[in-house]
Amino acid sequence: MNMNLQNFFSPKSIAIIGASRTSGKVGHEIMKNLIEGKYLGQIFPINKEGDEVLGRKIFRSILDVYEKIDLAILAIPAEFVLPVLKQCKKKKISSVLIISSGFKEIGNEKLELEVQNFLRKNEMKAIGVNCLGIYDAYSNLDALFIPRYKLKRPDRGGISFVCQSGAIGAAILDLAAHEGHTFSKFISYGNATDIDESDILKYLENDETTKVICLYVEGIKDGEKFFKTLQKVAKKKPIIALKGGLSEEGSKAVMSHTGSLAGAKEVFYGIFNQTRVIHANSLEEMFEIASLFEFIPNKIGNRIQVVTNGGGFGILSIDSISASKNLSLAELSENTKKNLRAQLPRLINIGNPLDLVGDADPRRYEIALDQIMHDKNVDTVLVIVLYQTPLITKDVIDVIKNFKLKSSKSLIVISTGGDFTRLLSLQLEKDSIPVFQYPENAIKALDKVAGYYNKLS
Amino acid sequence: MNMNLQNFFSPKSIAIIGASRTSGKVGHEIMKNLIEGKYLGQIFPINKEGDEVLGRKIFRSILDVYEKIDLAILAIPAEFVLPVLKQCKKKKISSVLIISSGFKEIGNEKLELEVQNFLRKNEMKAIGVNCLGIYDAYSNLDALFIPRYKLKRPDRGGISFVCQSGAIGAAILDLAAHEGHTFSKFISYGNATDIDESDILKYLENDETTKVICLYVEGIKDGEKFFKTLQKVAKKKPIIALKGGLSEEGSKAVMSHTGSLAGAKEVFYGIFNQTRVIHANSLEEMFEIASLFEFIPNKIGNRIQVVTNGGGFGILSIDSISASKNLSLAELSENTKKNLRAQLPRLINIGNPLDLVGDADPRRYEIALDQIMHDKNVDTVLVIVLYQTPLITKDVIDVIKNFKLKSSKSLIVISTGGDFTRLLSLQLEKDSIPVFQYPENAIKALDKVAGYYNKLS
Repeated sequence: MNMNLQNFFSPKSIAIIGASRTSGKVGHEIMKNLIEGKYLGQIFPINKEGDEVLGRKIFRSILDVYEKIDLAILAIPAEFVLPVLKQCKKKKISSVLIISSGFKEIGNEKLELEVQNFLRKNEMKAIGVNCLGIYDAYSNLDALFIPRYKLKRPDRGGISFVCQSGAIGAAILDLAAHEGHTFSKFISYGNATDIDESDILKYLENDETTKVICLYVEGIKDGEKFFKTLQKVAKKKPIIALKGGLSEEGSKAVMSHTGSLAGAKEVFYGIFNQTRVIHANSLEEMFEIASLFEFIPNKIGNRIQVVTNGGGFGILSIDSISASKNLSLAELSENTKKNLRAQLPRLINIGNPLDLVGDADPRRYEIALDQIMHDKNVDTVLVIVLYQTPLITKDVIDVIKNFKLKSSKSLIVISTGGDFTRLLSLQLEKDSIPVFQYPENAIKALDKVAGYYNKLS
Repeated sequence: MNMNLQNFFSPKSIAIIGASRTSGKVGHEIMKNLIEGKYLGQIFPINKEGDEVLGRKIFRSILDVYEKIDLAILAIPAEFVLPVLKQCKKKKISSVLIISSGFKEIGNEKLELEVQNFLRKNEMKAIGVNCLGIYDAYSNLDALFIPRYKLKRPDRGGISFVCQSGAIGAAILDLAAHEGHTFSKFISYGNATDIDESDILKYLENDETTKVICLYVEGIKDGEKFFKTLQKVAKKKPIIALKGGLSEEGSKAVMSHTGSLAGAKEVFYGIFNQTRVIHANSLEEMFEIASLFEFIPNKIGNRIQVVTNGGGFGILSIDSISASKNLSLAELSENTKKNLRAQLPRLINIGNPLDLVGDADPRRYEIALDQIMHDKNVDTVLVIVLYQTPLITKDVIDVIKNFKLKSSKSLIVISTGGDFTRLLSLQLEKDSIPVFQYPENAIKALDKVAGYYNKLS
C-alpha cells in the first residue's frame, strides 16, 4: 500500500457525511470543530435530509457536490457505511475517515469484513472504523467529534500520537494540551479495518513536523509488518509505545474493546527489545519521555550533573541516577572544581550534586552554570530550582534560559510547587526547556531516552 | 524523654528571637506568617536593637517580657544560639524551635554538641537546628519562614508530614496544598540536635488530627529507637516513608546535607519490611498513597472492580491490578451480572472491567454502581470517568457522590484531562473522594495500601 496519507491530514476539501443540524450529534460536532479549528479548505456537509447546518447548505448526497472532494468523513450508523462507500467510489474519493462504530467490536465481524473487502478492491484508503478522528495542528484539521470545552486541543509542536483507543486518546490529548505539550498530529485509528498502526507509522516516518511518536496499541493483526515497521521507523524517529492488555486478564478485555487479539506479552517485549522502540510503563511516563524528545532535539548524553538549592532533592536525584540503567554521575573536572571553589561560598561542597544550599540566589546559579557549561565531563545538566527558598527570585529564569542559549549541553529543570512555581515553569517551557515536578520522574524519563541513544550508537 | 510536644504545636505564647524589621529576614518572615496565619496566641518579637515590627513593640530580650512564654523561636546566627538558650532557661522556656543553621551541616560539630548538651542538661526540648519550622493547620501556627505567595499552606486535614530536609519540605508542602491535599501538621526537624524523627512520630501517634504520617528521612542516628518507634506507631497509624540517600553516591551527599550518616540501604529495607511502614519509591508516590488514607478512613479491601467509559483505561487498569502484589480482580456475583444484563445495553460486556463504552451517560453509571454496591464479591470500586466522551454530563458527579454516601465500599475515581476535568474532580475531592489522573498510579498506591492492611491482619 502506498503510504501517502496526505489527503487525511491536509485535504483541500472535506465532505462530512452525516452532518446533522442537531448539536451533540457526531456529524454536527465534527463540522463545528473543523470550523472553530479554522480549517482553510472547503467543507461540504452531507445529509439525506438536506437543509442547513452552521450557516452552510447541506447536500443530500456527495454525488450532488460538483467540486472535487479529498476526504470523506463518515459519521453515520454502521449499516449505511457500505452504501456510502459505494457513492464515494463513484465520486472518486479515495480517502475515507470512518468514525462509525458497530462493527467487530460488538461482534459484527461480517459487516467489517465487507467494508474491508470493498475498500481494498477499490483501492480506497480508510482510517477507522470505530474511531475518534484526526487532529492536525499544522493544517488546522480538527476532525474530532468531542467539543473543545471538553477536550482542549494542543498547540503546534513535535509530538504525534497514534492511538487505537478513542477514549484514552481523548483524555490524554486533553491532558497533554493542558500541560503544555505541543503536537503535530493525533490519530485515533480504532479497529484498523484498513489502515493500521504500521501504515500510520510509515507515514509519520517522513512527516516533517513529527519529531517524536507516541503510540498506544492494544492488539496487532499483522505482527511481522508491525515489527518491520517499528524497526525501520524507530531508527529515524523516536517511538514511545504503551501496550494495553499485557496481562492475561487485560488481554481478555482487549477482545471486547477493539475486537482484536492482544497477543502474548512475550511477543511485545521481544519487539520492544529488538527494535529501538521505547517501552513506556504508564501513560504518565509516555508523555514525560515525549517531552524530553520534544524539547531537546539533539542527542541527550548520559553523564548527568545535578545542580540544586535543595539538598534533599539533590540526594533523591543522585539515588535515582544511581538506580538507572543508562545514566551516570558526571565528575566535574579539576579545573571546574577549582573555579567553582574560588567563586562560591566556602561552605558549599563542590561535587555531584552541586548543592548551592538554601540561601542560593540567581547569581549563585549563574556562577555554577557558567562553569559547568565548559566542562567536557558533563553531558546533561539537571537544574533543580525550588522557588520556595528565600533568596530565589524570578531572575533565575533568565540565568537558566541564558545557559540554554549559550551551551550545547542538554538541560532539564526540576521545579516542584504550586501556583508560583507553575507560573515560572511555564516561562521556561515557552523556551523549550523541559520542566518536571519530581526528580524521580525526570530521571526515569531521561534514563529511557539515554537507552534509546545507546541502542542507536 | 516525655513526648509531650504540645508547646510546639499549640503554644499560648511565642517569642521570636531575631524578629527583624527588615522584610526578607527569617525572623521578620516568621512574624509575618504567624500574623497572616491568624495565630491566636500572644507574639513577642525580640531583638537586641529594639524598635517596632509589624505594628508590635520589639523587646530587647526575652527577659524583658513579663508574660509566660510557651515557645521560643530562634532565628539568629549560630553563635548566638547558646547565649539565647541560657536566657530561655532563665525565663523558664522549655520548648525551643531553632531555625538557625551553621552547625554540623557545615562541619561545626562542636557547637552543635554544646547546644545539645545544654538542652539535655536543662531538660529543655528543641526542634532543629537548621530547619524550616513548623506549621499546624489546626492551631493556626505558621512558623515557617517562607512567604505565603511562594509556599501555599494546605487546609486542615489528616496528613502530617515530618521532613528532615527543609527545601523538600517546602516544595512538597506547596505542591500538596496546590493539589488539594489537606494537612494537620508539617514539621521540618533539620539536624535533629535534640528532638528527632522518632520523638515526633511518638507524638503524632496520639495526635488526634493526624490520620496518616508522611516521613522524609535521610540519616538516622539512633537506629534501634527508630525501629522500635516505627514498629509501635505504624500499628496505630499508617506511616509512609521516603528515604533519601539509599544509593552509595546519594548517601555521600547526605553527609554534606544534614551532616548525618545515611546508613546502609539494607538496614532501611529491613526496617521497612519488619514494620508496617509503607516504603514510597518517590515523592509523587508518597502523596498518592497518603491521599488514599486521607480520604478513605476505613480499611481498603483488595478485590477491585473497575467501571469505565474508556475501554483502553479499563484495560490498563486490569493490567496494573494483575501486576500488583496485593490486589485482585473482583468477580461479580451471578446475581449482579444478571441484574446488569437486564438493565444495560445488550452490547455491554458484563465483567471486569465493566466497560460502559463511549456513549455511556450518567444514568448508565448509576445502574452499574447501584448493582455493584450490593455485591459481596467487591471490596473497592475504581470508577474511571472520562469527561471527554459525548454523553457524560456533570450529573455523573452526583451519581458518584451518591454511591459514596450509600455504600460501605471504598471508592477511587480516575479522571484524566485538562481544565474541565480538573473542575469536576475538585468537586469530588471536596467530598473526600480520591481522584487520580492516571490509572497506573492509582493502582500502585492502592496496592501499597492493601499491603499495609495485609500486614495488619
